[in-house]
Amino acid sequence: MALPSTARNDPSADERLQIIQAGTAACRLYGPSKTTVSDIARLLGKSPASLYRTFPSKADIWDAIAADFFESDLRFAPSPAGDPVGAADQLKQTMLGHHRLLLQAIHGDPKMFDLIVLSASSNWSSFRQFRNRLHGLVGELIRVGIGTKEFQPTDVRAASCCFCASLLVLWDPRIVGSTPSNHCEISAHKLVSFAIDGLR
Amino acid sequence: MALPSTARNDPSADERLQIIQAGTAACRLYGPSKTTVSDIARLLGKSPASLYRTFPSKADIWDAIAADFFESDLRFAPSPAGDPVGAADQLKQTMLGHHRLLLQAIHGDPKMFDLIVLSASSNWSSFRQFRNRLHGLVGELIRVGIGTKEFQPTDVRAASCCFCASLLVLWDPRIVGSTPSNHCEISAHKLVSFAIDGLR
Repeated sequence: MALPSTARNDPSADERLQIIQAGTAACRLYGPSKTTVSDIARLLGKSPASLYRTFPSKADIWDAIAADFFESDLRFAPSPAGDPVGAADQLKQTMLGHHRLLLQAIHGDPKMFDLIVLSASSNWSSFRQFRNRLHGLVGELIRVGIGTKEFQPTDVRAASCCFCASLLVLWDPRIVGSTPSNHCEISAHKLVSFAIDGLR
Repeated sequence: MALPSTARNDPSADERLQIIQAGTAACRLYGPSKTTVSDIARLLGKSPASLYRTFPSKADIWDAIAADFFESDLRFAPSPAGDPVGAADQLKQTMLGHHRLLLQAIHGDPKMFDLIVLSASSNWSSFRQFRNRLHGLVGELIRVGIGTKEFQPTDVRAASCCFCASLLVLWDPRIVGSTPSNHCEISAHKLVSFAIDGLR
């Protein structure tokens, strides 16, 4: 049985950040499947064992690197609410904005993109956080739209789940990353408009 | 350069069928990643080379096995149109029926399910046929619903694409096969109703 250590229970934020930054650099060099804990430790001039004082397992390191990427590179905030931009337009912006960030990652940061595909496929905590953040943002916008009578009154949480699920092709890394002709030639704009019609 | 052979240009339907049946049996035993062309040939009492007189490559054999499974085990036909069953109900039945067949395959035929996940991930012709068949069926039902004034007049092909894309969580093997809590706890019924609202 492992004895609890202070470092393991309350890891220093600085150490976490250093490991995440070095892990991101290693992942960009070698890709998520070929990066090892030793690669990350070498970049930091530390021993692999020392990394396990901050993260309990290799899986936790990879999940933290993915969470940081989701947070820093795949977070889209719509322009502030208010006329002339209604809730429907903000919802559109939000979904298309996330889609654009994912497409940029595929082309500009392919190895980090592979990592978030892994996160989604394995349902890591980093992916669940990304999805929950999107659900929360969409829920807020639906609430605003119900207030302004753009949308029908409804169970906001359920509507947000349905809306996000119906636009999975735009924001789920597994699907966004698949070959272009994998679904249909319909544009992202049309897909969002179709889903928004379900809220009116 | 390979010389064209009669068998390669016009493979006997019987031989194709035998190879597909033996390939399905081998895949059920060993799973798609561990099955070899030799395994299939052995089940048929033939040499591996002889299989290449019917199929140009290993990939073509796997694609044909997947196509046969999509066609025989994952084809859902809604009850005939007409009152009291309207087009909206038929659409619901169609999407929920496909979803049910996929869930049955996950639990009852897990190795064949792995094969169709591979087909979807790699965008094989078998997956594109399955998706196109679904798009076609959904398009017919939307056309019926426009005729009965259940749905707004619209570009049927685009609406069918949007509708199918918005319900990907129900019929794309990659997503249906992912861990249960991967999207949200919303029911399949609610998701379909949400997408149908987009057609009204």
